[in-house]
Amino acid sequence: MKTADLIIENGLVLQYDRSSSSGISSIAVKDGRILDIDLPDRIKSNYNADSYLSAIDKIVMPGFVNTHSHVSMTYFRGLADDLPLMEWLNDHIWPAESKHLSAEFVYDAALHGCAEMIKNGITTFNDMYFYCGEVAKAAKKIGIRAILSEGVLDFPVAQYQNSQEIIDYTIKQHDKFKHDELVQIAFGPHAIYTCGTDTLQKITKLAVARDMLVHTHLSETKTELEDSLKKHKLRPAEYLDSIGFFDNKVIVAHAIWLDEKEQSLLAEKNVAVAINTSSNLKLASGFAPIKGYMDKGVTVSLGTDGVASNNNLSMLEEMSYTAKIHKLLNEDPTVLPAEDMVKMATIEGAKALRMDNEIGSLKQGKKADIILLNTRDLNVQPMYNPYSHLTYAFSSEQISDVLIDGKIIMQDRKLVTIDEDELFNKAEYYRNKIRENK
Amino acid sequence: MKTADLIIENGLVLQYDRSSSSGISSIAVKDGRILDIDLPDRIKSNYNADSYLSAIDKIVMPGFVNTHSHVSMTYFRGLADDLPLMEWLNDHIWPAESKHLSAEFVYDAALHGCAEMIKNGITTFNDMYFYCGEVAKAAKKIGIRAILSEGVLDFPVAQYQNSQEIIDYTIKQHDKFKHDELVQIAFGPHAIYTCGTDTLQKITKLAVARDMLVHTHLSETKTELEDSLKKHKLRPAEYLDSIGFFDNKVIVAHAIWLDEKEQSLLAEKNVAVAINTSSNLKLASGFAPIKGYMDKGVTVSLGTDGVASNNNLSMLEEMSYTAKIHKLLNEDPTVLPAEDMVKMATIEGAKALRMDNEIGSLKQGKKADIILLNTRDLNVQPMYNPYSHLTYAFSSEQISDVLIDGKIIMQDRKLVTIDEDELFNKAEYYRNKIRENK
Repeated sequence: MKTADLIIENGLVLQYDRSSSSGISSIAVKDGRILDIDLPDRIKSNYNADSYLSAIDKIVMPGFVNTHSHVSMTYFRGLADDLPLMEWLNDHIWPAESKHLSAEFVYDAALHGCAEMIKNGITTFNDMYFYCGEVAKAAKKIGIRAILSEGVLDFPVAQYQNSQEIIDYTIKQHDKFKHDELVQIAFGPHAIYTCGTDTLQKITKLAVARDMLVHTHLSETKTELEDSLKKHKLRPAEYLDSIGFFDNKVIVAHAIWLDEKEQSLLAEKNVAVAINTSSNLKLASGFAPIKGYMDKGVTVSLGTDGVASNNNLSMLEEMSYTAKIHKLLNEDPTVLPAEDMVKMATIEGAKALRMDNEIGSLKQGKKADIILLNTRDLNVQPMYNPYSHLTYAFSSEQISDVLIDGKIIMQDRKLVTIDEDELFNKAEYYRNKIRENK
Repeated sequence: MKTADLIIENGLVLQYDRSSSSGISSIAVKDGRILDIDLPDRIKSNYNADSYLSAIDKIVMPGFVNTHSHVSMTYFRGLADDLPLMEWLNDHIWPAESKHLSAEFVYDAALHGCAEMIKNGITTFNDMYFYCGEVAKAAKKIGIRAILSEGVLDFPVAQYQNSQEIIDYTIKQHDKFKHDELVQIAFGPHAIYTCGTDTLQKITKLAVARDMLVHTHLSETKTELEDSLKKHKLRPAEYLDSIGFFDNKVIVAHAIWLDEKEQSLLAEKNVAVAINTSSNLKLASGFAPIKGYMDKGVTVSLGTDGVASNNNLSMLEEMSYTAKIHKLLNEDPTVLPAEDMVKMATIEGAKALRMDNEIGSLKQGKKADIILLNTRDLNVQPMYNPYSHLTYAFSSEQISDVLIDGKIIMQDRKLVTIDEDELFNKAEYYRNKIRENK
C-alpha cells in the first residue's frame, strides 16, 4: 500500500494517448504530480490518501492552457465596446491606463483575473502587461501557474522611461522566479511597431542566453502588415526572421495577416501561435489562417486576450468560437473537429509554451493540473462523446473543481484560496474610480 | 394600498423606452402581467404582495425570445458533429429520427429541451418539429410560452403519409390551443425544397383565414439557392413572393443566401427573420446579411436552432457570436452594438412573432415574462454598462430566476416546475437506446 496526497475517484478521465473512449478511472496525486492513473479498483487497492475527491458523473481532464492574456486589464472590462481599434485604444483604454496604472492596481486586477481564470478552468496562463512582479504575487496567492512578461516598448510607458529599463526589470524578475514552482518570467517585446530592430535583437540575445520564452504580438491588424511592408519591405514575420528573432523559443499572439510563406516560416522556425478568436472578431481585426498553420505543422494554441476586448476569460468559448468560425471560413464543417479543439486548449497550449513535458495532458509524472467538469447538467445531457460536448456544449458553469500543482484551488465552484467578496469590493472601488475620472 | 401577486424588489431594471441608464426599480406583478414598475420606495408604499423576490445585485430584464428551434432534438445532442450537412442528416440524424421518433420520445425530449431553455433565460420559443401536441404538453408542464408548428413536408415522414395529414393535424391543434395562455399553434411548411407550390399556397390560404403565423426555413444553404434558380428561375425569396406566400404573417429561419433585392422584399412584405448563427457556422452553411436586413428595416431576431447542430440553447451565446462575427464580416467593430443585440434577443424576437404587444419588454400591462441575472460574479465585474455585459460577458450561469406569465419557473437556478433528476434518467435511457441502435 503506497501513500498519495489525494485521490480523484471514479471520473471519466480523458487521456489523449489512449483510445478516445477513455473509461472510468481514478488518479493518485502526490507532491504536486500525477502518481498513477488506473482503474478505480486498482487505485483503491494500491494507494491510501490523505484526501479524496469524487469525480462520479464528472469528466476529468488537463486544465486549460491560456497562451495569451493581459490578466490585469480586468477592471477595464466593458469600459468601451463596439469601437474601432484605434479609437478604443486612444480614447478609452490608454487614457484609463495612464490614469490608473500602479503596482497596487495591477496586483488587485490580476487577483480578480486569476480567480476568474480558475472559474474558467485555466490552470496555466501566458501573460503580457506591466508590473509583472505584482502579477506574479497575485498568481501565487491564487495558486495558478503563470508565464509572465513585462511588455517592452520603445517609448515611455507605465513606470518606465525607455525599453532598457523594462529589459532590466524583466531580467531582475527572471532571476527572482528562476526556481519558482508556479511562476516563470518570459521576455515580452510588445510588437514590431512598438519595438525597434535594436530592441528586438537585444532581447533575442538575452533570451537565448537565459533560455527564456519570448512572447510577442504579431500581425494583429492589416495596418501592421502594411506598415511593415512600407518600412521594412518585408511582411512582419519575414522581417522578424530577417533579424534573427525566430532563432529562439517564440510564441506569437494573434498571427492573423500571415501569407502561406510566412506560415511555413513559423513551422520551420518552430514558432508557436496563440489564437485569440473572440478578441479578433470583436475588434474586427481579422481571422488567423489556422488551417494553414495546422497543415504546415505549426503549433496552434488558444488565448483569451484581455477582458477589455473579449470580454470574458472562457476557454470553452474560445474552443467553440474557433471551431465554428473556421468551419464557415473554410466552407468545410470537417475542419477543426472537436477532439482537435480540446487538445488545442490543453496539450498544444503546453507545447506552445514549451511546457509539454510538465503539463497539458494527464500522464504519470506530469504536474497535477487537473479540472473536473460536471456532466449532470441539462445542457450536456445526453452525452455521446465528451470531446464534442467540451467543444460545443459545456460552459464554464460545469467546471466544478480545479487542481493546480496537486492543490485544490476550486471545489464545487467555490474558490479555496481567495475570498470572492473581497474581489467584488475591490472591483467596485476601482469601477467608481475609473468612472469618475472618465 | 393595492394588492399584487409578487413584487420583484430593488433590481437594475432594463426598460428600453427609458434612458439607457435604467435605475434601481421594483416591479409589481398581478394576474400574470406587469402591474407597475417604479422606484422601490413607491412600489413599497403603493402595493402589498403575496410574495417578494429580491433583485439586489441583479439585472431584471425581459426573458429571451428564441425565434427558431427544434426543441425535441435534445436527445440527438452531439450524436454526430464535424460533418457536412447532407452526411450529417442522411447518415446520422434522419436514421436516428426514423428509428426513435414517437409521441413519447418527443414529449420527453421536449421536456428536457424546455427545461434547458429556462436555464438559458428563454421565456418564449418558436418551434418546428413533429408531434407538436406533445411539445405543447411539455411546454405547459414546464410553464414556458411557445409557438409550435408541425413540420409540413410533401413526403411520408414521422406518423404521416402526406402533407395533407400534417395540415389537418395542425388545424386540429390550432383549434385545441386557440385560447391557451401559453401555447399558440403556427403553420410550419418546412422549406421550398420539401413542399411543392400547391402545398405552400394551400397553407397560405389557411393561415390567412385563421390569422396564424407561418414559420419556415429559407435559404439555409447555397444548394437551396441553386436548386431554386434551376427549378423556378427565381431566387428562393422571389419564388415565395411570386406564389403569394409573403402576403401573410411570416417568419423565415436562417435567411442566409438572400441578395439585396430579396432583402428589400422581406422588408416590404414585413417578413421577419430568425438568425441562427451558431448552427450556421457549425454546419458551414454561411452567414445571414444581418446588416443589410437592419439597414432595410427587416425585423431581425435570434434563434438557437436545434441542439443537434448548435449544440446548446444559450441565447447569450447567440448574441455574442452574432455581434462579434458580423463585426468581422463587415470589417467594422461598430456594427451590431451591444444594446441592439439585447433588443434582438427580446423585443425584436417578440416583433418577429407578432407578440410585441404582449411580451419582449418590461412595460406596464405586458405579460410578466421576466429574467433576473446575478451581477455578483467575477466574469461580470466590474460593470460599466449592462448592455455590454449582457452581450459580451454574461453567461447562462448568471441567469438566476425566470418568471413566465407571472409565475416563478426557476429560482436561484433551481427549476420549480420539474425534477431535474427525472430528466437525467430519461436522457440516459434514450442515450442507451439511440446508441445501441446505431
